[in-house]
Amino acid sequence: MSIDVLQDKIRAMKNPTVAGLDARIEYVPEHIRKAAYAARGVGLEGAVEAIWQFNVGLIDALCDIVPSVKPQTAYYENMGWRGMEMLERTIQYAKSKGLYVIADIKRGDIGSTAAAYSEGWLTGAKIEGQVFKSFDPDCITISGYMGSDSIKPFLDAAISEDKCVFVLVKTSNPGSGELQDIVAGDRQVYEVIGDLNERVAKGTQGKYGYNMAGAVVGATYPSDIRALRKRLEHTFFLVPGYGAQGGTAEDVRYAFDKYGHGAIVNSSRGIMCAWKKTGKDGLDFAQAARDAAIAMREDIKQFVTIV
Amino acid sequence: MSIDVLQDKIRAMKNPTVAGLDARIEYVPEHIRKAAYAARGVGLEGAVEAIWQFNVGLIDALCDIVPSVKPQTAYYENMGWRGMEMLERTIQYAKSKGLYVIADIKRGDIGSTAAAYSEGWLTGAKIEGQVFKSFDPDCITISGYMGSDSIKPFLDAAISEDKCVFVLVKTSNPGSGELQDIVAGDRQVYEVIGDLNERVAKGTQGKYGYNMAGAVVGATYPSDIRALRKRLEHTFFLVPGYGAQGGTAEDVRYAFDKYGHGAIVNSSRGIMCAWKKTGKDGLDFAQAARDAAIAMREDIKQFVTIV
Repeated sequence: MSIDVLQDKIRAMKNPTVAGLDARIEYVPEHIRKAAYAARGVGLEGAVEAIWQFNVGLIDALCDIVPSVKPQTAYYENMGWRGMEMLERTIQYAKSKGLYVIADIKRGDIGSTAAAYSEGWLTGAKIEGQVFKSFDPDCITISGYMGSDSIKPFLDAAISEDKCVFVLVKTSNPGSGELQDIVAGDRQVYEVIGDLNERVAKGTQGKYGYNMAGAVVGATYPSDIRALRKRLEHTFFLVPGYGAQGGTAEDVRYAFDKYGHGAIVNSSRGIMCAWKKTGKDGLDFAQAARDAAIAMREDIKQFVTIV
Repeated sequence: MSIDVLQDKIRAMKNPTVAGLDARIEYVPEHIRKAAYAARGVGLEGAVEAIWQFNVGLIDALCDIVPSVKPQTAYYENMGWRGMEMLERTIQYAKSKGLYVIADIKRGDIGSTAAAYSEGWLTGAKIEGQVFKSFDPDCITISGYMGSDSIKPFLDAAISEDKCVFVLVKTSNPGSGELQDIVAGDRQVYEVIGDLNERVAKGTQGKYGYNMAGAVVGATYPSDIRALRKRLEHTFFLVPGYGAQGGTAEDVRYAFDKYGHGAIVNSSRGIMCAWKKTGKDGLDFAQAARDAAIAMREDIKQFVTIV
């Protein structure tokens, strides 16, 4: 099962981290940008080419260090359909290198609309009885604000293709509490959605005990992670907020179970932009990203032992 | 201001409705599909071409009846980047026909990620100091589950381009209450987000008294609409759920203020698929859509008088 595939990769590499592929054009070293603009012009096509080359370099440098990459759709959609075309190539390339690809799309909708999103991201579209796939990652993130009928269609589609979903539960941003921390009876809103998600996904456990619907739980609220780890026994956690946003290895350890399983920690800028700290104009961007990914693995290893 | 442009168009046409452009390939009449497949093959390209032709026909038939159209991104993303490319063309074509375009994207994210989405949908991407626009509708829908810092970047971007946003408050689906109706103190969650949205948008009122951040409020919960209309004095409502989902003209009247202002009601399948009820194989799809849009206008006119 897909969630087991992810955990197996994490165990094999002894590394419970995922590298974000969220490049803005400013993150791309000048030598790559110049070459791309020379080939495609200064504009959307040139920027798309530059980020594609950057992504390929990152994937090549990281694929034997991290088990997974997480492209965030915002950083492709900002360049319109050309960016989305490049996202499709990026996902395919990462998969071809053995990486588990989590598309961070945070889509949320109901019934037939959720089914349509699922066609694009999970199952492919049915046209005159034939199926045509588009983005095809291993896993997507979704928003559950609209209720369990906004989770179920995505989860059903995911399961039909042996893929996973991660539902937003407790996000890492400063304002996350405005809605998510509201107390109603004996539960906070993020607990309500966490419970609801575990209920919807009941019976989909893989060999490590985790369901095919995981949860997004921010590193920036360690006491909430700790409580959620106990509460949501069968929910795998995707943990953003490490590094640039302020979450530490000590904070994220609470996301893991006693075997060091059940969670994966994301870093985006800390890895992608590592070259900005070496003083070498980005010619070493791939090595710098690799070094940063290794440093992150070692940092987390101080607190998490994967058996 | 953008929200005034929408209200002005509604007043000019005496029609507070928006037509969804959410076609699945099955909604496209056979003669259009056959021609598209002959030109582009049975597959994503053929389906994209068929839906493009269908959208053009709908836009031509509706542009002097309805003030606005609402493409839902799920029904373009399901065909991958090719669908997104066609969405860009659809938005441009609808705008060229004088329609106010609401892109129903329900994106939700924070900080730099929300800014990146905004580049794609509202402002354009900045590349080496130049701006390159992509989808460029008049307005987008967003999700506020992550808090006010997931609304503010979108709203700021919208205002900079004189565009609007609509934030999900109370959605029309059966499960919407699971999270949105949770009672905390003296407010339900959807009221919390409605209040928060009105607070974030404070000071952006146009000439009709409505802010540049509206709210999505489902027709299927008329008593909630009624209460929200009183509560959120400066919030314009986008009302889904009329027709196929069960909301009636009598239900939606509560979304409007005493001048018949402040709301727009969506219908998607009821207009797009009207041809399926005429028994003419879809050769009359444009006329059928036009007739259905007129019928909807007249239906709502029984209960809402726009001054």
